[in-house]
Order: sequence, then C-alpha cells, then structure tokens
Amino acid sequence: MNPLVSIIMGSTSDLPVMEKAAQVLDNFGIPFEMNALSAHRTPEEVEKFAREASGRGIKVIIAAAGMAAHLPGVIAAFTSLPVIGVPVRVSFDGLDSVLSILQMPPGIPVATVGVNAAENAAILASQIIGTGDEKIRKEVELHKEGLKKKIVEANKELKKLNFRHKTN
Amino acid sequence: MNPLVSIIMGSTSDLPVMEKAAQVLDNFGIPFEMNALSAHRTPEEVEKFAREASGRGIKVIIAAAGMAAHLPGVIAAFTSLPVIGVPVRVSFDGLDSVLSILQMPPGIPVATVGVNAAENAAILASQIIGTGDEKIRKEVELHKEGLKKKIVEANKELKKLNFRHKTN
Amino acid sequence: MNPLVSIIMGSTSDLPVMEKAAQVLDNFGIPFEMNALSAHRTPEEVEKFAREASGRGIKVIIAAAGMAAHLPGVIAAFTSLPVIGVPVRVSFDGLDSVLSILQMPPGIPVATVGVNAAENAAILASQIIGTGDEKIRKEVELHKEGLKKKIVEANKELKKLNFRHKTN
Amino acid sequence: MNPLVSIIMGSTSDLPVMEKAAQVLDNFGIPFEMNALSAHRTPEEVEKFAREASGRGIKVIIAAAGMAAHLPGVIAAFTSLPVIGVPVRVSFDGLDSVLSILQMPPGIPVATVGVNAAENAAILASQIIGTGDEKIRKEVELHKEGLKKKIVEANKELKKLNFRHKTN
Amino acid sequence: MNPLVSIIMGSTSDLPVMEKAAQVLDNFGIPFEMNALSAHRTPEEVEKFAREASGRGIKVIIAAAGMAAHLPGVIAAFTSLPVIGVPVRVSFDGLDSVLSILQMPPGIPVATVGVNAAENAAILASQIIGTGDEKIRKEVELHKEGLKKKIVEANKELKKLNFRHKTN
Amino acid sequence: MNPLVSIIMGSTSDLPVMEKAAQVLDNFGIPFEMNALSAHRTPEEVEKFAREASGRGIKVIIAAAGMAAHLPGVIAAFTSLPVIGVPVRVSFDGLDSVLSILQMPPGIPVATVGVNAAENAAILASQIIGTGDEKIRKEVELHKEGLKKKIVEANKELKKLNFRHKTN
Amino acid sequence: MNPLVSIIMGSTSDLPVMEKAAQVLDNFGIPFEMNALSAHRTPEEVEKFAREASGRGIKVIIAAAGMAAHLPGVIAAFTSLPVIGVPVRVSFDGLDSVLSILQMPPGIPVATVGVNAAENAAILASQIIGTGDEKIRKEVELHKEGLKKKIVEANKELKKLNFRHKTN
Amino acid sequence: MNPLVSIIMGSTSDLPVMEKAAQVLDNFGIPFEMNALSAHRTPEEVEKFAREASGRGIKVIIAAAGMAAHLPGVIAAFTSLPVIGVPVRVSFDGLDSVLSILQMPPGIPVATVGVNAAENAAILASQIIGTGDEKIRKEVELHKEGLKKKIVEANKELKKLNFRHKTN
Repeated sequence: MNPLVSIIMGSTSDLPVMEKAAQVLDNFGIPFEMNALSAHRTPEEVEKFAREASGRGIKVIIAAAGMAAHLPGVIAAFTSLPVIGVPVRVSFDGLDSVLSILQMPPGIPVATVGVNAAENAAILASQIIGTGDEKIRKEVELHKEGLKKKIVEANKELKKLNFRHKTN
Repeated sequence: MNPLVSIIMGSTSDLPVMEKAAQVLDNFGIPFEMNALSAHRTPEEVEKFAREASGRGIKVIIAAAGMAAHLPGVIAAFTSLPVIGVPVRVSFDGLDSVLSILQMPPGIPVATVGVNAAENAAILASQIIGTGDEKIRKEVELHKEGLKKKIVEANKELKKLNFRHKTN
Repeated sequence: MNPLVSIIMGSTSDLPVMEKAAQVLDNFGIPFEMNALSAHRTPEEVEKFAREASGRGIKVIIAAAGMAAHLPGVIAAFTSLPVIGVPVRVSFDGLDSVLSILQMPPGIPVATVGVNAAENAAILASQIIGTGDEKIRKEVELHKEGLKKKIVEANKELKKLNFRHKTN
Repeated sequence: MNPLVSIIMGSTSDLPVMEKAAQVLDNFGIPFEMNALSAHRTPEEVEKFAREASGRGIKVIIAAAGMAAHLPGVIAAFTSLPVIGVPVRVSFDGLDSVLSILQMPPGIPVATVGVNAAENAAILASQIIGTGDEKIRKEVELHKEGLKKKIVEANKELKKLNFRHKTN
Repeated sequence: MNPLVSIIMGSTSDLPVMEKAAQVLDNFGIPFEMNALSAHRTPEEVEKFAREASGRGIKVIIAAAGMAAHLPGVIAAFTSLPVIGVPVRVSFDGLDSVLSILQMPPGIPVATVGVNAAENAAILASQIIGTGDEKIRKEVELHKEGLKKKIVEANKELKKLNFRHKTN
Repeated sequence: MNPLVSIIMGSTSDLPVMEKAAQVLDNFGIPFEMNALSAHRTPEEVEKFAREASGRGIKVIIAAAGMAAHLPGVIAAFTSLPVIGVPVRVSFDGLDSVLSILQMPPGIPVATVGVNAAENAAILASQIIGTGDEKIRKEVELHKEGLKKKIVEANKELKKLNFRHKTN
Repeated sequence: MNPLVSIIMGSTSDLPVMEKAAQVLDNFGIPFEMNALSAHRTPEEVEKFAREASGRGIKVIIAAAGMAAHLPGVIAAFTSLPVIGVPVRVSFDGLDSVLSILQMPPGIPVATVGVNAAENAAILASQIIGTGDEKIRKEVELHKEGLKKKIVEANKELKKLNFRHKTN
Repeated sequence: MNPLVSIIMGSTSDLPVMEKAAQVLDNFGIPFEMNALSAHRTPEEVEKFAREASGRGIKVIIAAAGMAAHLPGVIAAFTSLPVIGVPVRVSFDGLDSVLSILQMPPGIPVATVGVNAAENAAILASQIIGTGDEKIRKEVELHKEGLKKKIVEANKELKKLNFRHKTN
C-alpha cells in the first residue's frame, strides 16, 4: 500500500523521539514511510523528496529537526502538502527548534507541535487524513477514548492511596 | 454553501489580527465562518461548538488566543478535527500564547503557527482541505507562485537602487 | 467529614509533586480529596467537577498541571471558588506551565504559586479557609513558627562549623 | 465600614494599574483601603501594616510591585492572611516581577496573578471573601455572567461584519 | 569589476537594515552585489545563486533574514564559501532570528553577527577578504582608527559638560 | 579636589542614562570624573585608565555598557578597585548587557546593578566610600530618609483619592 | 577580632555554595561571620541583624538566596552598608534569583555577582575593604597574580598535548 | 610550518569542547596552534597575542569562552583578522556566552557559531582560508560530501528498521 504519511527526520539521532510517531500511525493502520534527510547536508534530496511527495500519493509530511531546525520549513517551500514540524530538544530546552520551525514567513506555514511531540504529530497527521477518511477519523476518536479510560483508571488507583483515608 | 473552516477567536480584540485569515480563505474560495468564543467566559458555548463542528461539515478549525491561550487546546479536547492555533501577541512578545498553545499533552495536538500568523493559519487550513480537493490545492499553489513573483519583482527594484551602480 | 479542599492533577505523573499538598492539609486537619482529571482527556469530568464543587462544600480548589497547563484555568471557568494553580515542571524549567496558568484573561483569575510548589498551594488554601476559621488560622501560624525554629536551629549548627573559629 | 481588603502598592507609579482593582471591589460592595508602602524604602511601615492587618479585620491583602518585586513576599512573611501578588510591568515585559513574586520559598506562599492583572487580583480577593460570604459569591457569579454577555454581544456584532457575508 | 561580496536578504523589508552593509563595502572599495531571495518563496533561485556564487568570483556571502531565518543556513548548504548571517529583528527582539541562524548542525557553519548588525557583517566580510588582500586589510584598520577617533572626540565633548566642573 | 569615583561609559550614547549617577554623586559631595572609553574601540586607553585609577586616588569605578557589555569586566581585569557595572538597555530588554556584565569568571568580580540603574550605581559607590568616611555614610542615610519621606507624602495624596471615600 | 564581613544565607541548603566565600575571606585574613537568616521565615532577625551590622563594625554584607531571592534587598533596606547579593541556582538556571536580586528600585542598590558566584562575592567584599586597607588590597592583587600563574601553567600543559605537535 | 589558525580558549576547562576544532583543522591539513589565554586573568597576554597574530602569519583566530565570554571580543579589539567566537555552555544553556560574544558594537564584529560548536568554528576558519587557497576549499567540499554520505548510509539503515515493513 502506498504511504500516506512521510516521516522525515534531520538526523538518525532523532529516531528515538520519532519512533513514537511510527507506532501511532501503525496503530491507526495508516501506511507511512520514514526517512532521514538533512536540509543542510542533503539539500538536493530534500528538494526532490518535497517536490515529488504529493505525486507519490503522500497526504501529510511530518518533519522533525533540532537546533536551527530548518527541515520542516525547507520542505514546506517545495510542496503545498501540509507539513507538520516536530521541534526536537537538543539545546536551549528545544526553544531554538521551536522558534526555527514556528516563526515561518507569511505564505509558507508549518504546523508546529510541542517539543519532542512525535505522538501528537502522528495524531495530527491522522486528523488531517481523517478529514477525508471516515475510518481514520474513527481511529482517532477511539484513541481519545483510550486516553480517557486510562486517566479514569489512574484516578481510581489514586483514590485508594493512603492520605485520602485520613481525611474523609 | 456550508462553511468548511471555522475561525474562532477568544476575544473580538483579536479581530484585527484574524481578518487576514478571512481574506485568504475568501481569496481561495473556501467557505468559512468566524466567531468569538472564550474558553474561560463562554466555556459551554466552546464545548457545544467543538462537539458539533464536525457534524456541521466543518473540516478545519482555526482558533486564535492570547496570553494563557487555552482556546485552541480546549476546542481540540472536544473534537477530532484538526485544530490550528494562532498565538496572539498580547504580552511577553507572544511567548505565553505560543507555549500555552504548543505544549499540548500527548493525545490532543494543536497545529500551532507563528505569532499573529493568521495568514499562515488560513493557508495551512487550505492545504489540509487541499489534501482532498484538487481545486483548493491549485489555489494554494497559485498563491505560492504569487509570493514568488512579488519577491522577484521586488528584487528587480532593488537592483535599480543607487549603491549597486557604485560597485559594478 | 466533607472535604474543604479539592486537589486535582492533570495526570497521575504529577502525584509525586502533589503528595506534599496532601501532607500539609492532613497536618492542619483540613479534610480534602484528591483526583486526577485532565482538561484535555476528560473535559466533561472537569466541567462536572468544577460546577458541583461549591455545592459539595468545597471551599478551595488546588489544580496542578504541566506544559500547556490548562487545567486550573478551565476549572476556574466553571466555578467562582478560588482556584490555586500549581505549575508542574515538565519542560522549559516549568516556564510553559507558569505562563499557561498565570496569564489568565480579565475576569477569571487563577492564584498561581511557584513551580512544583505543592506545599505552598496547600498553605495558601489553608490561609483562605483560615479567613473564616480561627482554628485553621492558628495552624498556619504554628506552621510558620515551626519554619522559624528550624532555621534558628540550623543557624546554631552553622555557627559550630570550622571556618567561623578561624576568624572570631 | 471596616475594610476587608487592603490594596498595597510599592510605588504610586503603580496607581494607574491598580485603580482597576479598586473599581472591581467597589462594584462588588467590598470595603477596601489603598496604600503606598515600599518594602525597601519604608520597611518598618510594611512590617507594622502586615502584622496588624488581621487584627484590623482585613481578610485579604493585594500587593502590587514591579522589577525586583519583594513587597508581596515581605508582607506574606509577617501575616498569615492570604496575600495576592500583582506583578507590575516595568522591565523585561514583567518577567522580573513575576519571578520575584511567584517563586516564594516553601512556607510563605503568595497567590500570584498575571502581569498588571489588578482586576483579576480583586476578583480573586472577592472569591476568597466569598468562601465565607454568600452575598459576595453571588456578586462574583454576576460579574462572570456579565463577561459572558459581553462576549456574546460582541460575537453578534462580529457576525454582521462583511467578510462573513461573502462566504455563507 | 566583479563583485566579491554578495548581500542577500530574505525580503526587501530588510533593506533599511542592510543598506548599512552596502555603505561599508562601498567605503572600503569592495565591489559587491545585493539581491532579495527567499529561502521559502524562491528556493530554486537561492539554490542556483548559492551553487554559482563561487564560480562567479564571489568570496563571501552576507545573508540577512528575520523570524525563522533559514536563508543563511540554506545558502551555506549549497556552497563552501563563508556565509555571514545577519539576524533581523522582527519578533521576539530578534531572538528567533538569532537561534535560527546560529544553531547550525555540525558541518555547515554560519558566521553569525549581532541582531540587525549589517555594518559588522560588512566589516567581517572585509576582514575575510583582507586575509588575502593587503589593501583591504588596511581599509579595515583605517576604519577602526576612525572609530577610535570618534570616541576620543566624543570624550572631549563629554569633559566640557557641566557636572564635571562641579567636582574637579 | 581629586575625584574618588570614576564614571566610564562605553559610548556617549549612554550619557542620558549615566547623568543620573553624576547628579547623585554631586548631591553627596563626592568628587568624580566622567569619561567615554570603549573596551573595543579604545582598548589601550581602557587599560591605561584601569591600571592608573588606583594610583590617582580613585576608590570606585562605575562602568556602563550595553549589548555585549565588556567594559566593566575588562576594567576589572586591570585593577583591584571595586568595579560597579551598569547594564545599559539597547537590545533584548538589556538581558544581553546584564549577562555580559554579571557572569564574570571566578577571580574578577563586577558589582552589577539593575538595567539602566545609574542612580543605584552611584549610591552603591557612595556606600563603598562610606565604609571609610563617616560623612558620606551620613549622606547615604539622609538620602534614604528622603526616599522614605517621598513615599509617605505620596501615600497621603493617595488617601485623598476618590475611591477610598466610597468604602471607609 | 571583630568580623568585617558578614555572610548571610537564606537557607543552610546554600552552604555548599557559600563555603567558597568563607575560604576566600579566610585566605585573605579578613575576619568574617556566617549566619542563616531568612527574609521570609525570620524577618525580625533579618531586620535586627541589618540594623545593627554597621554598629558592630561590619563593613560589607554578603547575602545569598535562591528563587524569589529577597534576602539581599531586604537587608539593604535596613542598612547603608554595601550589600553584595549572590543569586543561588535553584530553578530557572538561577534567572529568578538574578532578577529578584538585581532589579532593585532606585535608592536601594544591591551589588549583584554571578549565579552561585560566592568566590567573587568574597573578592568583591575584599576589594571594598581594600579601598581603606592597603594590606587587604595587596592580598587581592596577589590572588589575581595567582590566577594568572595558574592559567599560564595550564597553557604550558596544553602546549604539550598531542595535536599541537602535528602542526608546528 | 607556520600556523594559519590560532585557537584560543579562556580556560583549559574548555579543552574537551575545543579538541574537535583541532581535529578538523588537522584533518584538513591546516597548520594551527592552541593556547589558553584569559581576557580577565591574563589580559596583557591576550593583547600581545592579538596584536602580533597577523604579523606571525595567522589568518584566522578561533576564540572560545563561557559565561560573560569577553575573550573573542577583546581579541577582535586588537586585530583586524577575522575572529570566530565559540560560546561555551557553562550556565544558562550557553545563552550568556552567546549574547556576550554575538552582540558586539558596530565596528568590531565577531563571527559567532553555535553553542559548543567547535567543529563548525574550524570549518568556518577553513572556508575563510579557502577563499584564497584552492586546496583547502577542496578539503571543505570533501568534508561536506562525507557528511552527505554518512546521512545517506544512515537512511539506508533506517529503512531496514521494523516499523517500515509493517506499512509498505
């Protein structure tokens, strides 16, 4: 099956962060691909990738990078697909990555998620695909239900803890 | 025609910033609606809006807010549509808005754009709709072409400026 | 005995931080309850909780959250009880949590305490209850006396240290 | 009638910011007093004030200060009344004031509100008094209703604006 | 005469800042060119420019950009000429531009100067050319002498000011 | 009379900030001198000045600078007199100046005062001189008394304001 | 012998940082004392200490504190002796401590040194005492000589390292 | 062979960071020297070094320093050679070093690279030397090729990872 989402990372050192995105897409049954391409070391490959992504059937691109994180913006310059940027924490608590991805000039947006938020990038990609695919939208809804259940369960455990018994 | 994009702002004081988003969507021929709803002052209305948006045919929500900018995240809690957050600059150069919108917990992403970047929010919304609508994707491509032409023209003007003649 | 203070945390991962608040309230003999509710994963439960808290006899709510910490503000939107917000340190040294809790719009205040300052949140809750309960006010005063004694004792130990003997 | 709330500011240059607090309390019918006292220039007066406030019937203290804003914390050191701190913006967008007020050591909390948020300080003070005074709690609820109405009205105006007509 | 320095700016709105660089190079008699090229709006032109610059005899590139300032880094990806980056102040006091330019990954440096420091970028470019051109190095030395003279003159004026007469 | 305090500024553009220091010293009757010397443009003069200051009877040096504010630290490198650094606000709200002055390596301290705090620099210089000169110490005490009186007077004016009459 | 310098810390947890100050003063032969006093927990003791310090022969006060670090400023409010503030790193990399100590209002300066810079605080105290005591000034000069020697020695070691031999 | 590049560090504690620069220069066959000199502890040596560097045949200076990092700027004051500054991370995530090096006044630029970016400093130095030395330029190009190959290889490994097989 052709990939619908393409995960790109600026360096394989971002893999431990980005694996989470792959897992989420896999759980949702969304075909994806994953590549390491650098805006600064392999700029031609990045350009080629970005130009051809739409033609290959890709619907959403997730691009992760740290420090002066140019990758998501550079990809966005060469495609009109929605590009999701994941700021990776390397220095300055990730603030340099956030600002380098978020503060794009008018005309070339990048949909930025939180620092190291690979899971949320994948969910956002799924929501975007879900705008045209009822089955995927359901998957996203189910995932949210699961999150809710987890916290409800956790709350039950919390209520069994000792200090509550002391007071009521 | 039913709106496909819903622009929500936390306060009508955000209108001068968000008008730009309306103009872009209008230019692209994307039907949209625009409302002022506050996560803190009209929380029930926000919840009702967010729950019903998908059923009304909305595909993307753009939510703008400043300071402790909870609106985009609160909307995202009640829908599985993609939510685009626009951090509005009110204090701290907009850093409080950025962090309040960007740093969402796992499971509930908000697609954050730059500070006051209403135009980019609208383009991102169009790109998302464009993943399932070839005509809109073309509009986005044309818009990018326009941006390119503008800078090429500007560059020609730049070359006529005096200091260049001095040196070559 | 009915709880007077309700401690809410956005995730059970905040429990190691918030236990301290429970201990303080317990020491002061103030009945309390403790729950995990998420502004983004269980928004209906948060709303229900906030709406009903006052009717159940709760006097003060302590809400802890990290990152884009919306929980205290969202609770404040649904109640006119005083809400104390505890910014939990997860990222950016806790600055994102601080700004997301502190910078509330006019009309919906959150009484913010320092990063991870669960103990101070509990003392503040006790001071608030103490405005109408002489016994609790006394407890707070005694606690302050205890802090003073501890530092006076510590100072005595300090004076026994070696380097002072060298000079006077 | 004896004042229930005492508004203290570090300098009369803070008056334009703090007037808003006076107006809110006045609207709610809460008796209050307002004084300029400096933690650094009139430390004895600050101490005397803080020690005697509770005995004079004061229930809540609102203290405003800018820069190295010590006033709220120094007052809190001498009383067990709840102290609300208002960080005034003078430099660093108010970040120095926020951190100087917020980051109090364990044992001596200050209930911090947003930068220049005098209105919210007064509402929080009213909420605290409202925990023991049904009439004041009602006033706070009414105020919230008013805020809601204002945004609902504003939204109606927004819907009349031109760009909506273009699209639906 | 062939230009030795190429000044590139991301937008003609950066011209008021970058004119200063042109003036300095003009004063030093260093032939230069000036163009507006955007990393995001005209990425192909940027790539073409960067690839061909060395072959055309350019020795140093000065690239200015604001916000998510990718231009200097993207140029550096396509050339082994030294690239000087000028962070332009648009938002966040220029901090976003600084971090987007400065924090380049290993292998692709950008020589970053201060915020809006077009003059220093031109002097640095001259110093680089001066490493192989004695005449230019002399010009840089003379410029430094001039700066020194100016401050020495200013100091003389300062000494005539009134408050000095009062004390010695 | 020989100057006891030497005020140095990195540029005459700092004069409007530093005049306040001159006024304070003049009021206290402390002889002083004022010079513009740049750590980067006239480094030899700075070195000569710093080496000779103690021999000329100078007791304290006040050095003001903005941006990468090296002047106070460079002076401190060449003298064992106490050096007071005044961070001047030029960019980043003065944060660059503060950090460049404050964060000196072990062995070479600079006594840093607040951003643009020329008045406090002069008072600190006077306090230092006052450790060996009873008359100057008295002047400092009197100055503090004056500050106190001013705020006490201001408070009286405040009490006459309208909103107080409404409530007590 | 009467102490000339008084080292005060807000909590004995600051002792590992402040021991260094004691060692430096001891090395210089300057009699000192060391106490733990808290601006918030033992405010009366702080006031008493600050009022009496000058009368007991103290010439300089070194005050260390973290977070909302009020101790140096509160001491400065009650004395006209020079007060040196040491911002202790507890949270926010020490930025909260720096701003709480540095940004004092006009009239009440604190001589701030770098984060955790106890050694520099002691050297600054010695420089201040040295303005009236030739012997102490000599000690400070010798200390500087020692620092120089250490780096000259280190440089010799550096030159023996392998990679130098490869190239010259 | 005479060194062309001089690496200076403010303290031998910067050696683990700066070794990387030495390795890069060594790989490129560029003769270099390495010294520890402190702007504050050995200011005369710094001045002497900076004045004589050009005469000894040095083409580029790399200066590394942390905290209030004055070394690169002070060297730049005494030479018209290009000076590359490496901000070393000691405190504040390296932000103090960055601002102390980057924000130089007009006339005295420092070519700043990223935090701890010794490798990039060496590559930049090589690029500068490469403007007049074809052989060195080739080395830089080869190095870039190597970086590209490494990421292409890494990408191949990435494609073999398990989660890709699941989806296409």
